[in-house]
Amino acid sequence: MHTPTLPQADPTAPPFAPDELPDLASIRRAAERIAPWAHRTPVLTSRSLDAMAGAHLFFKCENLQRAGAFKFRGATNAVFSLSDDEARRGVLTHSSGNHGAALALAAANRGIRCWVVMPEGAPRVKRAAVAGYGAEIVGCAPTVEAREATAARVAAETGATFIHPYDDPRVIAGQGTAALELLADAPGLDWVVVPVGGGGLASGTAIAVGSISPRTRVVAAEPAAADDAYRSFTTGVRQPAGPAPTIADGLRTALSERTFRALRERVSAVVTVEEEAIVAAMRTVWERMKLVIEPSAAVAVAALLAGTDSAAFPIAPGERAGVILSGGNVDLDRLPWAASGAAAAGR
Amino acid sequence: MHTPTLPQADPTAPPFAPDELPDLASIRRAAERIAPWAHRTPVLTSRSLDAMAGAHLFFKCENLQRAGAFKFRGATNAVFSLSDDEARRGVLTHSSGNHGAALALAAANRGIRCWVVMPEGAPRVKRAAVAGYGAEIVGCAPTVEAREATAARVAAETGATFIHPYDDPRVIAGQGTAALELLADAPGLDWVVVPVGGGGLASGTAIAVGSISPRTRVVAAEPAAADDAYRSFTTGVRQPAGPAPTIADGLRTALSERTFRALRERVSAVVTVEEEAIVAAMRTVWERMKLVIEPSAAVAVAALLAGTDSAAFPIAPGERAGVILSGGNVDLDRLPWAASGAAAAGR
Repeated sequence: MHTPTLPQADPTAPPFAPDELPDLASIRRAAERIAPWAHRTPVLTSRSLDAMAGAHLFFKCENLQRAGAFKFRGATNAVFSLSDDEARRGVLTHSSGNHGAALALAAANRGIRCWVVMPEGAPRVKRAAVAGYGAEIVGCAPTVEAREATAARVAAETGATFIHPYDDPRVIAGQGTAALELLADAPGLDWVVVPVGGGGLASGTAIAVGSISPRTRVVAAEPAAADDAYRSFTTGVRQPAGPAPTIADGLRTALSERTFRALRERVSAVVTVEEEAIVAAMRTVWERMKLVIEPSAAVAVAALLAGTDSAAFPIAPGERAGVILSGGNVDLDRLPWAASGAAAAGR
Repeated sequence: MHTPTLPQADPTAPPFAPDELPDLASIRRAAERIAPWAHRTPVLTSRSLDAMAGAHLFFKCENLQRAGAFKFRGATNAVFSLSDDEARRGVLTHSSGNHGAALALAAANRGIRCWVVMPEGAPRVKRAAVAGYGAEIVGCAPTVEAREATAARVAAETGATFIHPYDDPRVIAGQGTAALELLADAPGLDWVVVPVGGGGLASGTAIAVGSISPRTRVVAAEPAAADDAYRSFTTGVRQPAGPAPTIADGLRTALSERTFRALRERVSAVVTVEEEAIVAAMRTVWERMKLVIEPSAAVAVAALLAGTDSAAFPIAPGERAGVILSGGNVDLDRLPWAASGAAAAGR
């Protein structure tokens, strides 16, 4: 007996048009929604780094956010946007990075189930973070196809709502709340510099800043080794991610149609930085600001300290620049300067 | 021809009685004096560490202070307390640690000269910090006698005012300003936990807390391997420093008569923590709070996370404890967990 199967919608597809973006009102609502759960992180300054950059820098410390990254904002906004009926069936994502842990913690805060699809070989420390917040880890082969098929299967079986790491207006609205706080705490910014990977943070930031302070220009910084956003922005045509051999593991993903639209409409430039500049900027922030930041966060700092394309990013001496330090999740046993450190110690 | 030498006062002796301490009014004046120069550091919280400690913890982030430690407060108060005439002749100290860099920066802010006596073998990174703020480094043999003789010689030659790292009421008053801010930002504390070495921070904290919030008990935490304050406090007789083989290099010094008096009168207990607990607490703060703290700062955290003498420090579940994270100056090439980290990486 053969039962014809009906064409079925992808159970992980978000209920939004592919280029739908949040507006300022959505970001403000997100800020109210996440306020009971998220830290209002401090904005810190450093005369040392000001001297190095030749500008006044205001660091929005999302490395001090719960679960160690801005991702908690978007995940929390998405989870607390669900109806009670949706929430009852739980949430689901695929992520081997900060979004998985953030969604797990957001779901725990709402008291609902959470599944995180992760490749079998994911680092123990990342699995531990997700499991520590009570989410269920679903293993899969380390390919995009396996990851998506596994997520679709879990969604079909459980009815859980899939929350994409960045391609979701609720997530983007949540990420934009960091910029609301930055603009309130550091008025009169000439620039805001933000790292770009999939583009969730960059999109939310650019929408918030462009709506509140149109004269403030937003610059997205990207590793030169993973420059799909740069190539997309400069060619006007969305480019796929390349092999992306960058230490900034949070920025290896490519823009979606949605986040590419936000960048095209709202971002003044995409600039790229080299790997050595990322490591040097990371170390500088640890040493001088005493803040643990991850390589992805250091990408935005590197754009200011190492210098970049000065035509695209013509920051002038004494101008005021906000920098979003996006996260601080690193493996302390595998620091990028450990090799040279050991060599120095042996001298 | 023999000219009889007159008995001469020690040019490095402070112009205070050996047990003179600042009062709350002095600490409040210090707060006004340093306000243009020092960061008002944030007080941060962490649900992870709360869960580990079974208490509500409020971390006063002096690792984010200028020059990377609370020492900048005391040094700034001392430097800006000098008359114009005194200031013109500069300031002087002996310190291979945070006080040297703090005094150098404070002097630079006032636009006066600064000499720092350091043993010839002092770490390059510490020399660089002092030199980077424009102070003059005066080398000496690595003994207490050589250090003091060299300081006395520089004082006699230059007329510079010697600013002791902790045995000075102006310095103690400056250190006490961190507690003023902590009490303002985290009201209703049951406890304040502070590391103790020479006792400048512990004294200033205990005087501020005892004057403003008498019901709040102050606990001083010390490495078990450098427990002169513990032995002094429990025997009632000031004890000399032992060999002090602790990783918490900021806490190897012994109490002075002055700071011992403050501890006896104002501190509710001195507790000790083991070396492994210090390293574990340091790593926990880096990993969970994303803050770079030095081992000396971790000593206070270890007293809460590892547990100590519960009769001396009977913190009850759910009580509120302030913790002063005293500094964040570490050599990133020589982290205490690097050996075990390499072993783990090799597994």
